[in-house]
Amino acid sequence: MANKSAPDASRRSERSRRAIFDAALTLVGEVGYEKLTIEGIASRAGVGKQTIYRWWPSKAAVLLDAFTAGVDEDYEKGLPNTGDLAADLKFVLRATVDEFNDPAFQAPYRALAAAGAGDEELSRSFVGRLLEPGTLVYVERLRAAQEAGQVADDIDVRLATEMLLSPFSQRWLMRTGELTHEFVDTLVDQVLRGLRPRD
Amino acid sequence: MANKSAPDASRRSERSRRAIFDAALTLVGEVGYEKLTIEGIASRAGVGKQTIYRWWPSKAAVLLDAFTAGVDEDYEKGLPNTGDLAADLKFVLRATVDEFNDPAFQAPYRALAAAGAGDEELSRSFVGRLLEPGTLVYVERLRAAQEAGQVADDIDVRLATEMLLSPFSQRWLMRTGELTHEFVDTLVDQVLRGLRPRD
Repeated sequence: MANKSAPDASRRSERSRRAIFDAALTLVGEVGYEKLTIEGIASRAGVGKQTIYRWWPSKAAVLLDAFTAGVDEDYEKGLPNTGDLAADLKFVLRATVDEFNDPAFQAPYRALAAAGAGDEELSRSFVGRLLEPGTLVYVERLRAAQEAGQVADDIDVRLATEMLLSPFSQRWLMRTGELTHEFVDTLVDQVLRGLRPRD
Repeated sequence: MANKSAPDASRRSERSRRAIFDAALTLVGEVGYEKLTIEGIASRAGVGKQTIYRWWPSKAAVLLDAFTAGVDEDYEKGLPNTGDLAADLKFVLRATVDEFNDPAFQAPYRALAAAGAGDEELSRSFVGRLLEPGTLVYVERLRAAQEAGQVADDIDVRLATEMLLSPFSQRWLMRTGELTHEFVDTLVDQVLRGLRPRD
């Protein structure tokens, strides 16, 4: 039997889900992770808090879903592979610089990273759901370059990825330096210099 | 006029100062930065809270002095320079691995780093007083190697230092990987590979 109300209900659910994600991301950027509450998210999203509790067990679960909703698609696509490793890495890292210099993007991300630094369980989810998939797309791009003979066989590509991404993350999280296109360009060149096959 | 009570008073002050530092470091590791209070530190140190307020304006100031009291001397000495850059870096980073795997050392440090990620003013002090001096000893060691012809002239030694230290900090702070002697050995070798002068 066709249930005429199902498509409408599904559209309403999707609208509520998006409203809850937007509210969670905005609020955590405004008040920080500690002071974020399910009640606050429900009120900002214009839904009842039971709606949230029906779908998620905790504020951490809402927030992680809200973050990954935006990035899962990017991770599936992987990094561009034009055959020019340096150009591909600079292209993606320059876009990432622009993203992290955008206050609307970075406030919720920072709140989650700061809370994760002090809270081991949250940090495991944060790493597993966000940081690790984000790292793996770089590992895969470097492995493709290694298979193409552009990166030496004895290079640990996981560690090479950390040499590339960690200086970025550290500058951003600890505010130890500026994030600019020039910074990532120099970083890419200096990291790749050590990865090339010896003649 | 000699003041007979001065040496005793000075010894008492030094004892109180040490007790306050120990209490601050232990407590922040136990309760986190948010819940750390001057009252709590005073009570744990067995001093009146006015004693603390006489010397420091805030809990952040006490904590930063407590941390730097232990490391200023290390920073003044700089890194060893035996002429073998790889060996010197591995020696120091292996010792740092042992330090960061020690719960008593890492709990207060993590509390401060986590609080600094979310609090810009605290983070500026944390970086200026602790992270930056700790980074500069590596920059200086790499610069000495550059002057000795072991590192190419066109290498940005500041960025090379970040390639070396940020993967370490990131693994520790975000718990994205193990900190082992093997990790730092491979990291040193892989970073240095890219720094050598081209033949």
